[in-house]
Amino acid sequence: MKIGLLGLGTVGGGVYRIVENCRERWESKYGEKINIKSILVKDMHKKRSIRVDSSVITDKALEIVKDPEIDTIIELIGGNDKAFELIVKAMESGKNVVTGNKAVVSEQFTKLIETAVKNGVYFGYEASVCGGIPIIKTLNQMKDINDIDYIKGVLNGTTNYILDKMSREKIGYALSLKQAQEIGYAESDPTADVEGFDAQRKLAILCSIAYDIHLKPEMIPCMGISKITGKDVSAVKHMGYIPKLFAYAKKKDHFFNACVEPVLVDRNDVFANIPGAKNMVAVNGNYIGELQLDGEGAGMFPTANAVVSDLLDILGKSSPSYPEFGRGKLSFLGMEGCTGRYYVRISPGENRIIESLLAEIERENVECKIFKDRDDLIMVTEKTSQKRIYDYMKAIDEKNWSNCFMRIAD
Amino acid sequence: MKIGLLGLGTVGGGVYRIVENCRERWESKYGEKINIKSILVKDMHKKRSIRVDSSVITDKALEIVKDPEIDTIIELIGGNDKAFELIVKAMESGKNVVTGNKAVVSEQFTKLIETAVKNGVYFGYEASVCGGIPIIKTLNQMKDINDIDYIKGVLNGTTNYILDKMSREKIGYALSLKQAQEIGYAESDPTADVEGFDAQRKLAILCSIAYDIHLKPEMIPCMGISKITGKDVSAVKHMGYIPKLFAYAKKKDHFFNACVEPVLVDRNDVFANIPGAKNMVAVNGNYIGELQLDGEGAGMFPTANAVVSDLLDILGKSSPSYPEFGRGKLSFLGMEGCTGRYYVRISPGENRIIESLLAEIERENVECKIFKDRDDLIMVTEKTSQKRIYDYMKAIDEKNWSNCFMRIAD
Repeated sequence: MKIGLLGLGTVGGGVYRIVENCRERWESKYGEKINIKSILVKDMHKKRSIRVDSSVITDKALEIVKDPEIDTIIELIGGNDKAFELIVKAMESGKNVVTGNKAVVSEQFTKLIETAVKNGVYFGYEASVCGGIPIIKTLNQMKDINDIDYIKGVLNGTTNYILDKMSREKIGYALSLKQAQEIGYAESDPTADVEGFDAQRKLAILCSIAYDIHLKPEMIPCMGISKITGKDVSAVKHMGYIPKLFAYAKKKDHFFNACVEPVLVDRNDVFANIPGAKNMVAVNGNYIGELQLDGEGAGMFPTANAVVSDLLDILGKSSPSYPEFGRGKLSFLGMEGCTGRYYVRISPGENRIIESLLAEIERENVECKIFKDRDDLIMVTEKTSQKRIYDYMKAIDEKNWSNCFMRIAD
Repeated sequence: MKIGLLGLGTVGGGVYRIVENCRERWESKYGEKINIKSILVKDMHKKRSIRVDSSVITDKALEIVKDPEIDTIIELIGGNDKAFELIVKAMESGKNVVTGNKAVVSEQFTKLIETAVKNGVYFGYEASVCGGIPIIKTLNQMKDINDIDYIKGVLNGTTNYILDKMSREKIGYALSLKQAQEIGYAESDPTADVEGFDAQRKLAILCSIAYDIHLKPEMIPCMGISKITGKDVSAVKHMGYIPKLFAYAKKKDHFFNACVEPVLVDRNDVFANIPGAKNMVAVNGNYIGELQLDGEGAGMFPTANAVVSDLLDILGKSSPSYPEFGRGKLSFLGMEGCTGRYYVRISPGENRIIESLLAEIERENVECKIFKDRDDLIMVTEKTSQKRIYDYMKAIDEKNWSNCFMRIAD
């Protein structure tokens, strides 16, 4: 196996180290020499903590992808178009491809599998969802036997860390985010994490596998955590809840829905106790029942471990695990038909506006309890249409009020 | 694929149903006809809830195992010698074998793998540990990349159900066991479950995989739950603990130890909240970190799901996952060198005996707190040698006192 490694960032560095450490064991087990022949970097002169022979380093991606000696490409450059182009070129030159790039997998899933199958190469993407948790292989295997009833999980470690900190240390959102940035859990532009887009991509990949339909991330309703304040965390704590950014999908007759949104889980629920930056996924199948996996969702070595697990599948000549798009029997429902109980906090400027809002809610017949929390109003609704709540909140946003809403777990 | 199914009990019935329900989907996916050609039963005339064509039923095991048309044997008859003989015969006739039999796997692991490799057949044993939790495949894959630091888990659903019930409903051991028997969670002779032998076998298989050394079950120190009383559950609850039957193994320098014993876990620990008959396993590797799996550890369909997952590996021509016995670098340590804090309850008949015991403990310099719980004495030791505690308790047993001891989780 001659490897071309695209990207020597955190995960790329981890892959390099694991391969160097385990190479001899694998060579003897699989009877094949293993070699990282070329490594693509952006900056040839950057100082690195990892010692790599300078002769294998290059900044010319196409040289690696077209190198006839290289049989396996590991793509870890991230992003969409460029990565997609390189992966497809590599497959078309008969190379196996392993990626940890959730953007490209979620957007180009159909095309990637088609290209791999057409060219008879292995396409591995275990590292694209939840780092050290082997959810891709597990879910592919589950759904070969089971009808998947639901998937639910905390798929984003950064938001879990922030919410966990807010809850434990009674600090506000901004400070908690800042601390997450300081220790490297959150990026300087945290949008993808805190607005839920990272979890949305991961959920899109999981749904695509579970339901054999290529669900693009942007189809999934998505609400982040940036409007949750210390006041909310403390108010829901008194009600016995812990807020988590949940990604979930559920089958309903001939449809399934999917959503990423903050969810209040009972403090005794197993999901309430996921610490720090960990991830947890639960999948329910009609035969296997509920299976939960819980582990390191990100980080150098856990994610590199997932990349390497695909390499070992190639060495062991295991069949790759692909969904069968086009064979799925369920349609995607979006937000229509979905219901839930919601916690809503509104901090308006004028009492007159609150009154008109309350009147509106009453007109619409959403049963709910309303109480004051200092200057704010907190509403806890009975089961109501998810879409209605989202529409309300959109209307409130347009009025430029500060507000926050979270679904209450069933 | 022409299957010979040995055993049509709970799991066998589940396998039959899943194969019948999914057959068409798999035939189209894997391009191969799938057929359960023969089924071995003990009693040809027994009434069954499952409808099976009488022409496929037989009570002659050797006919199935020697049938040249059958290429895959599923062994679900349980027990040791007979099952071993049939599996080996099947492999020697070039048949793939899938088993859910933890007794035969744990005792004959070396021989089974050797025979499979020698005959170039697939040997699948996912169903031998923890039913619906895919721990065998996951652990095999983890340890191909990682050094396994520890394994710990609640591997036996029956004892978890009994202890859970004692804890929640404040009832004694005997009543809780009786109720577990009534709903079918415990067998009429519950010894294998409640004395820990079932968990001991499962742990033996997991250690053998993790450490590449065939560890026989009887090597693992094992203590069951039958001496835990309602008084113990209530006493430890006041200290903030929940008792669980734990199976664990841990690497220490060039050694590893393993043990099955009741362990007191903090009530907020994730292991404290495993409900009813569920199982949970945590494995820690140097790269992947801690991975936890949690699901249905037994039952018709979850276990049948595991059997079927091996069938799909055969259909998909995946490589089987075997430990490499002989390559393991760690030696098994047994109880030597292991330490822990222990909870001990002694209900002796005579104060004089208690006094002599206390004197003995003091002489041995085991630091501990001692307090009275009604007529009993409860001791909570500081870290002490596991072997010393086991020796004490053995001595007490010989004096025919009632007693109970449980390790306190670190």
